[in-house]
Amino acid sequence: MRVVVDAMGGDRAPAVVVEGAVQAARELGVEIVLVGRQEAIEAELARFETTGLPLTIRHASQVIAMDEHNPAAAVKTQKNSSMVVSMDLLKRRDADALLTAGHSGAALAAALFRLGRIRGIKRPALSTIFPSDTPQGHCFLLDIGANAVCKPEYLLQFAIMGCVYAERVLGVPNPRLAIVSNGEEEGKGNDLVQETTPLLRASGLNFVGNAEGKDIPWGLADVVVTDGFTGNVILKLAEGVSKFLMDVLKENIMSSSVAKVGGMLAKPAFDAVRQRLDYREYGGAPLLGVDGVVIVGHGRSDALAIKNGVRVAAQAVENGILEAIKDGIAEYEG
Amino acid sequence: MRVVVDAMGGDRAPAVVVEGAVQAARELGVEIVLVGRQEAIEAELARFETTGLPLTIRHASQVIAMDEHNPAAAVKTQKNSSMVVSMDLLKRRDADALLTAGHSGAALAAALFRLGRIRGIKRPALSTIFPSDTPQGHCFLLDIGANAVCKPEYLLQFAIMGCVYAERVLGVPNPRLAIVSNGEEEGKGNDLVQETTPLLRASGLNFVGNAEGKDIPWGLADVVVTDGFTGNVILKLAEGVSKFLMDVLKENIMSSSVAKVGGMLAKPAFDAVRQRLDYREYGGAPLLGVDGVVIVGHGRSDALAIKNGVRVAAQAVENGILEAIKDGIAEYEG
Repeated sequence: MRVVVDAMGGDRAPAVVVEGAVQAARELGVEIVLVGRQEAIEAELARFETTGLPLTIRHASQVIAMDEHNPAAAVKTQKNSSMVVSMDLLKRRDADALLTAGHSGAALAAALFRLGRIRGIKRPALSTIFPSDTPQGHCFLLDIGANAVCKPEYLLQFAIMGCVYAERVLGVPNPRLAIVSNGEEEGKGNDLVQETTPLLRASGLNFVGNAEGKDIPWGLADVVVTDGFTGNVILKLAEGVSKFLMDVLKENIMSSSVAKVGGMLAKPAFDAVRQRLDYREYGGAPLLGVDGVVIVGHGRSDALAIKNGVRVAAQAVENGILEAIKDGIAEYEG
Repeated sequence: MRVVVDAMGGDRAPAVVVEGAVQAARELGVEIVLVGRQEAIEAELARFETTGLPLTIRHASQVIAMDEHNPAAAVKTQKNSSMVVSMDLLKRRDADALLTAGHSGAALAAALFRLGRIRGIKRPALSTIFPSDTPQGHCFLLDIGANAVCKPEYLLQFAIMGCVYAERVLGVPNPRLAIVSNGEEEGKGNDLVQETTPLLRASGLNFVGNAEGKDIPWGLADVVVTDGFTGNVILKLAEGVSKFLMDVLKENIMSSSVAKVGGMLAKPAFDAVRQRLDYREYGGAPLLGVDGVVIVGHGRSDALAIKNGVRVAAQAVENGILEAIKDGIAEYEG
């Protein structure tokens, strides 16, 4: 198993990426290819004892910035960027999977240009693991931004890919599937939801109906499907609301010395909540529908997130996710 | 000033509605007409000293249930419901404004059937006050569910109505306006956002651009406009995420005795956060675009929320919101 890691991707790259890759090489028995500026990577590697670890470096001189406004153009012009070079290694089957905590739009564009789509897939989807009250503690949400404008047949494919991923990689048997809507009753929804619902109902997937915004954290479903516009708003709103709430709470706790003592005593509880919301445990979520295993980590990934991202990438390969998606499309698309 | 109050609307009606109406009649110098089942209202009124208060009852025998699945049909068939009778009083100008904490879809349908739209308004919008880091502590979000499918010209009108309301009733000078999108850069967005943006930019309103989900709680804008599908998902997701977070925190605090003590000491801080998120302070948000002042309170309204809802209704009348909307449409629609 060989995983290529975009060493320059993420807010704290290459330092935390290299650190996480070293941990992955040490603990997971996975070969790692670090792609990026050789000198920078070597400097980071020198901080660790790496003798005998299955770690190699592939030099790439350019970096696509995290705040790049036109990722598609960047991917075309920066052919020696760590993102594009990583994708090329995957395309040539020099690696089994790819992990990047870099620009997700650039990952999408690079994957589309270099790997292309799985045969029969109309559009790829970006996904995320959303903290939720399901038995496994999270639900799988897609599309979170690859396709701002969607057709019903795209959403059906996202649903199939999502359920296959949840079952094969996240270990959820017979995952419950829902579609985001503005009301729980059938008949609610915009045109897209109303046209997609009969497709989901007829698919043979375990479709449980509409998920309102309030249901998403509450475990109604294991896989939640939506268009990339709404999914992106959901993902970012949840982050914004969580941060707002915790900040207001912190500010109020710090404003009185009694409350401050209370806050210190309750710290383990706060830490538990933070862990519950912590994307780092999940490592990353797949870019589904492209012809290669690509895991996109959070831009704020730290070493733990990177290590877990490598684990997720390896699991996706071991569980034959690409073949499973092809089979799923054949079985459920009808 | 006379405000008609739907005494049967809300999860805890008529008890808390009558209590709030009594407080409003006592403290706000506003005449109140309570609409609903006479006996039930009288029984609730008997709990208070109401001698000399400007409170009257108008009997209405039916109640539209909070979980009614087809509010438009209910409004048509239940002509003697508290909602429809209240709306009729407003239509006949027997009252200046209406407050209901009942079914918001039914309020919308009843207002459309009985009051009609303000001349020139294409679609009415439901709105909410969203806790946010603005100077006034909240932003005004619309549409939150009246129109699952929107056209750019509707969103322009929502923006105009929202800005007029924020300026006149919420007291925000020159309110900053944003549109919900899946990225901050112009060019991001689904078709609706891309087609609406030039209209907002040309309108003369104080348009500051796209608001991502993460920006909404963070005070980027005073008025945030979106279609009713997305707005409804935002509203309910924010409620769901807040509740999920607070519940997980509570559960963790209760699981250890040290943390429990900490939680008790920090209780004032938790209460402050709850208050910050508390819809009751705002009383309700308007149904904009119909030809009458209609304020829709939260279904979970208590007496304080009802009292504040009456205050908001009176303020909207005093500030001439209907005329101001007509003027705003003439000024900004171009």
